[in-house]
Amino acid sequence: MLRHTAAVEPIYPYSAWEVIENEFKIENNYRNETIFALGNGYIGMRGNFEEGYSGPARTGLEGTYLNGFYESEVIKYPEVAYGFAERSQTMLNVTNGKVIRLIVEDEPFDMLRGECRAYQRTLSLRYGLLERKLIWRSPQGREVEIEITRLVSLANKHLAAIHYVVTPLNFSGRIALLSALDGDVTNLASENDPRLGSGLHGRALLVEDHVIDGSFGALLQRTKSTRFLLACAMAHDIETEGQFTTESASEALGVTLTYHVDAQQGKAIRLSKYLAYVTSRDYAEQDVLNTAREVVTSGRARGFAALRQEQADFLAHFWERADVEIKGDVAIQQGIRFNMFHLLQSVGRDGKTNIAAKGLTGEGYEGHYFWDTEMYVAPFFLYNSPDITRKLLEYRYSILDKARQRARQMSHPKGALFPWRTIDGEECSAYFPAGTAQYHIDADIAHAIKKYMEVTEDTDFLVKYGAEILFETARLWASLGSFIEGKGFCINCVTGPDEYTALVDNNCYTNLMARENLQYAYDVALWMQRQAGDAYRKLAASISLDEQELVQWKRAADHMYIPYDDQRQIHKQDDTFLEKAIWDFEHTPPENYPLLIHYHPLVIYRYQVCKQADLVLAMFLLGHKFTREQIRRNYDYYEKVTTHDSSLSTCIFSIVASEIGYHDRAYEYFMNTARMDLDDTHHNVNAGIHAANMAGTWMCLVNGFAGMRTHGDVLSFRPALPKGWQEYTFKITYRGRLLRVTVSKASVTYELVKGDNLAFVHDDQPLILSRQGEVIDCARSDPAPN
Amino acid sequence: MLRHTAAVEPIYPYSAWEVIENEFKIENNYRNETIFALGNGYIGMRGNFEEGYSGPARTGLEGTYLNGFYESEVIKYPEVAYGFAERSQTMLNVTNGKVIRLIVEDEPFDMLRGECRAYQRTLSLRYGLLERKLIWRSPQGREVEIEITRLVSLANKHLAAIHYVVTPLNFSGRIALLSALDGDVTNLASENDPRLGSGLHGRALLVEDHVIDGSFGALLQRTKSTRFLLACAMAHDIETEGQFTTESASEALGVTLTYHVDAQQGKAIRLSKYLAYVTSRDYAEQDVLNTAREVVTSGRARGFAALRQEQADFLAHFWERADVEIKGDVAIQQGIRFNMFHLLQSVGRDGKTNIAAKGLTGEGYEGHYFWDTEMYVAPFFLYNSPDITRKLLEYRYSILDKARQRARQMSHPKGALFPWRTIDGEECSAYFPAGTAQYHIDADIAHAIKKYMEVTEDTDFLVKYGAEILFETARLWASLGSFIEGKGFCINCVTGPDEYTALVDNNCYTNLMARENLQYAYDVALWMQRQAGDAYRKLAASISLDEQELVQWKRAADHMYIPYDDQRQIHKQDDTFLEKAIWDFEHTPPENYPLLIHYHPLVIYRYQVCKQADLVLAMFLLGHKFTREQIRRNYDYYEKVTTHDSSLSTCIFSIVASEIGYHDRAYEYFMNTARMDLDDTHHNVNAGIHAANMAGTWMCLVNGFAGMRTHGDVLSFRPALPKGWQEYTFKITYRGRLLRVTVSKASVTYELVKGDNLAFVHDDQPLILSRQGEVIDCARSDPAPN
Repeated sequence: MLRHTAAVEPIYPYSAWEVIENEFKIENNYRNETIFALGNGYIGMRGNFEEGYSGPARTGLEGTYLNGFYESEVIKYPEVAYGFAERSQTMLNVTNGKVIRLIVEDEPFDMLRGECRAYQRTLSLRYGLLERKLIWRSPQGREVEIEITRLVSLANKHLAAIHYVVTPLNFSGRIALLSALDGDVTNLASENDPRLGSGLHGRALLVEDHVIDGSFGALLQRTKSTRFLLACAMAHDIETEGQFTTESASEALGVTLTYHVDAQQGKAIRLSKYLAYVTSRDYAEQDVLNTAREVVTSGRARGFAALRQEQADFLAHFWERADVEIKGDVAIQQGIRFNMFHLLQSVGRDGKTNIAAKGLTGEGYEGHYFWDTEMYVAPFFLYNSPDITRKLLEYRYSILDKARQRARQMSHPKGALFPWRTIDGEECSAYFPAGTAQYHIDADIAHAIKKYMEVTEDTDFLVKYGAEILFETARLWASLGSFIEGKGFCINCVTGPDEYTALVDNNCYTNLMARENLQYAYDVALWMQRQAGDAYRKLAASISLDEQELVQWKRAADHMYIPYDDQRQIHKQDDTFLEKAIWDFEHTPPENYPLLIHYHPLVIYRYQVCKQADLVLAMFLLGHKFTREQIRRNYDYYEKVTTHDSSLSTCIFSIVASEIGYHDRAYEYFMNTARMDLDDTHHNVNAGIHAANMAGTWMCLVNGFAGMRTHGDVLSFRPALPKGWQEYTFKITYRGRLLRVTVSKASVTYELVKGDNLAFVHDDQPLILSRQGEVIDCARSDPAPN
Repeated sequence: MLRHTAAVEPIYPYSAWEVIENEFKIENNYRNETIFALGNGYIGMRGNFEEGYSGPARTGLEGTYLNGFYESEVIKYPEVAYGFAERSQTMLNVTNGKVIRLIVEDEPFDMLRGECRAYQRTLSLRYGLLERKLIWRSPQGREVEIEITRLVSLANKHLAAIHYVVTPLNFSGRIALLSALDGDVTNLASENDPRLGSGLHGRALLVEDHVIDGSFGALLQRTKSTRFLLACAMAHDIETEGQFTTESASEALGVTLTYHVDAQQGKAIRLSKYLAYVTSRDYAEQDVLNTAREVVTSGRARGFAALRQEQADFLAHFWERADVEIKGDVAIQQGIRFNMFHLLQSVGRDGKTNIAAKGLTGEGYEGHYFWDTEMYVAPFFLYNSPDITRKLLEYRYSILDKARQRARQMSHPKGALFPWRTIDGEECSAYFPAGTAQYHIDADIAHAIKKYMEVTEDTDFLVKYGAEILFETARLWASLGSFIEGKGFCINCVTGPDEYTALVDNNCYTNLMARENLQYAYDVALWMQRQAGDAYRKLAASISLDEQELVQWKRAADHMYIPYDDQRQIHKQDDTFLEKAIWDFEHTPPENYPLLIHYHPLVIYRYQVCKQADLVLAMFLLGHKFTREQIRRNYDYYEKVTTHDSSLSTCIFSIVASEIGYHDRAYEYFMNTARMDLDDTHHNVNAGIHAANMAGTWMCLVNGFAGMRTHGDVLSFRPALPKGWQEYTFKITYRGRLLRVTVSKASVTYELVKGDNLAFVHDDQPLILSRQGEVIDCARSDPAPN
């Protein structure tokens, strides 16, 4: 079933710490905008050129996004029913602040006119910079050297900066640099691909005010329907040996500051531009503009070099805890670092925002947050930046009230139902069989809380936020399910992770995860009663929780129905999955994948065919609930009927394949995962990165190849080494300790980099690293690779 | 579960042949427009007043409709998937031709100004006329007597006429009569009730030309998207003893002809208006206007009295074959005649049109045709006007090519999938779980063909049209289903008639009906091979039908899986229905019905709760496939979980209740059915009649109380007499004979009114009426009613 494989010829040359483009190709432009995007979890800037792009329409998308900043419209259904999601939320394409246009005498610099030499664009994963260098020869023969460096500050979420250096090579004369804030931006409208969303109707950002004041400029805008206020500000510094004048202009939808320089041959002109995005989502309305001014003023005062250093320091700290090194495969090395870097760029970390399916790099899925967070992204950060994982979970707490309201609308008198897709907490899924029906989102969040607690022991979080989420989600399950005679506690009419099977009874994944949710809520309630009695009583009072409910949770968990086929000795994906005919894979032409854009849902739903890991995901998350033999049999069965049309699938299959010793399959899936976006194997990276899959890469390696699991108090490893690799090293943060694991041909080495007393299990053997710096060498148990 | 019951106080006084309104009440206006609507299967005119209505907005809808005349727009989905219906079809509200405004001196006549006396409005079911009589006293004290008679010609589908008589009672002076064609009409827009549809965006009929020529006027209009041409024409005759002048005017959206009369006290002025609607759906574009002119010119030449007589003759002929008489219950007598009359007014009979769910009386469900035709309306006409039933089935043949295309789109290489809702043959259902998923529409059509053949023996129809539909629908089932080990031939992921249970495996109704479809297609193929070899070979060649397919049909029919619960000894509505919890009826407040507008589909789908007869319908249609004990057990079980939120439900429950001797229940359901629209028990008759339920009334009586069944060559009865009735009589046309059946307290009388040699079964006893006029008296076997 695995169809996409890594390209033989890479789009970008292999490089361990960089993504490099040596030749500008127009056909790659749209895709490059995603690949070279910069972000800091709040601001996202697609990799558009500062001077714009004069190529044909539909080969590019000028995009700037702010996490959590959205417009909303009434969703119109051609045939509506009660409880359908009422309003859309769309991450807005906001003011383009990176505009710097260069005019040489009267010739505007344009990559598509004149001639480019010595072109190189580099995304530095180590330093968090986007650099472009080239020599441009204008149509009339003037040559300039251009070097542009861009950063979006990882240390200050409101700040970005561009350093623009231009040197006339074969002339002296007039050079103008026009720096602008361009408010003439709209979101893409797409109506044909369900993965893109329907887009907004017309311009959503209305300009309220312009400011120009010396080298400072700002645009104050308001969203039409959500009424959010946005200030986008810029400040500049110019260094030149020539005379210069400045000119400013404000148009209906923008402000421009122009530097006219008498340029001298061979002498560089250096323009630094500092950008701020500040909105009423973070500040009181009256402070929005002033805050933006402060951000750029202070950025300018510190200077570009200082910001660049700060960026390098931030990343050094990140890589120190998170880096994965692979000896023997630079392609994979690049892929995994690229993915980790983009995750860091995309993830919201203020407790009010989250991570969109496509990060802040594009408009796919309208910038919505999905379960991708809890199942893929949160686990990745959990082992290197647990504070980020906590913030992601705090975001869920911030929308808990809306989830409670949604539960009422869905006829649950108690509990909370989290939205399948959202920005601000309201359900935005407009196709409920693959949206609201995915009730498992509640259990996914509960699972992430459990994992977070196991790895951090952060009881402060649990008492303040986690417990309430756990109790409200447990209530939802208690209300959703029913005791059915002869079966037990059943959860009917839901959709599991596999969106090619909808509205089924007792989706195995859902029931397993709901059981864990119910049990864990019960355990946490009991723990709180003992350990944090006051907090428990306060919480119980505030949500009117009574003891009888705990008994119900426990009873539902204990009697949860888990569909199993005795004859085949495999778990059933749901009550009826195995009673359908198997999809006719043999006669399905390759171009008919992904199935969802070539077959009506009724056709897909009718057969045994999976879009993605469903039961297989449950076997990874809850592996301790399955025997190894069950895992193998289930895997063998479900792999045959899975298309991996979802980018969330292959990494999970890779992990479980590793677990049962299918090392070749594991590696194949991993290869597909690790460079999915860099090689654009799904042919849609132009619409944005696949954030969950990026986290999946890391999971393939750590949970898959190295077999790391955390269940309860036990941290365990079962490392294998993929064929052709010399060695790989990764680090994890676990209960405050920093552990480095190196898997080589000869052995597995565990080094306690920070902290003392770390107990763990290697290949079923309990080990302890007692003090910082201690190292243990073990034998690898998997068959020696070639 | 039966909540709606007949009103204690009727809205209109009981009357055997009329619906009468003695007082104009503004709060009834919107509803009255439906009740007093006229139609002829092509033109439908809501019962609006000629002079218009000056009441508040939303208490009325000026409506004129032409069967099969629609506008179409792209359906926009907030989240689209492959194969979703692409374009809407909406029956258009067309030019209002019935406008006649009366101006007394300078005072316009208006029911809401001045004073009304001696007001009466009468819908004559016997003569097919709408009459209004009143004396109006103007605000300034002038009194006029007004008598208006309106008809929509049942004999000529393009023609309607109005006879307007006004007599000044207490003055002589100026009276003006303005007669207009008003093109300033649009459809209602509704976005909140799924039963109404989303409406069109803006005006769909654009005026292309105006004609005024003496007493003749016309408006030529074109639909914006479908590009249909419509000519609406009028011609007039005026009789008055006073002097008069005429004046004509044409505005952007209409034409007006005004008669200014010097009226004399006590002398009547009589204006006859002849109206025609002719479109490019029936005539070549260049003939549309001329044909409309001919229609009104010839109508005028014949005169209103002649048309009125023609209307009476047409109806006399209809009632002669169709009338049902009930002694002892005038309320029911009125209800059943009202329903039959509206069915006759609503049904398309040209083979190109059909009958909309709300007839031609309103815009509910966008004027779409549903399975209501085959399951309810076609059986009603089958026994009094089998030619109409044939035309309804010919309509299905006319859209067979589109059904084939739809099957391809739904990934069936062969066969035809009829649309769940449509006007012109394309699927217009925008919510597929309760739309396209109702594959049973194919079997419903096949079933109607089988019944039509049993009752008419019309082999000409079978060979020309029926066989091809049967073969293509059988092919669809063969492709849709799969052989599943241990079960047989299964049909997965469909929705049965019950829309509160969606996307299930092996809906019992669907499988039973599909089995009949497959078997009957097989039988017909074999019959044709023997009896109409040439036609068979020609048809087989044209649709590439091979012998092997027949074998497949037979095999699928023979091995059809019919879900049955051995323990409970009842049929399962589908594979999993009985494994859901039962809806909490006890705690559902009455105002929460119908459930569909108070609960999300996911909530409804999760429980055992039915909107309407599903398995119970199968037990009526295919009763010979069940034992009486099975029917009783199934009925007992499913009645408890059925809400009858669909107007298609109660009549079916009534019939089956009769069959198993639940006479009181049968009568309760029947009561609910018979006067549903007259008493407005569903509170939505303003949006149009419930055509299927109207046919259901007749079925309750004939199939229910009288227990009539036709299976194969056997016509049988098992008559009962409802409590409180003296006697009832009905007639049926069967294989060319006209049979009158009278069920009285004492006996059951069968009289062969026309034809010879009719064999039938009375209470399991075979009988023969040998010659015309012969009568047989039998004993009633049901317990004597009080």
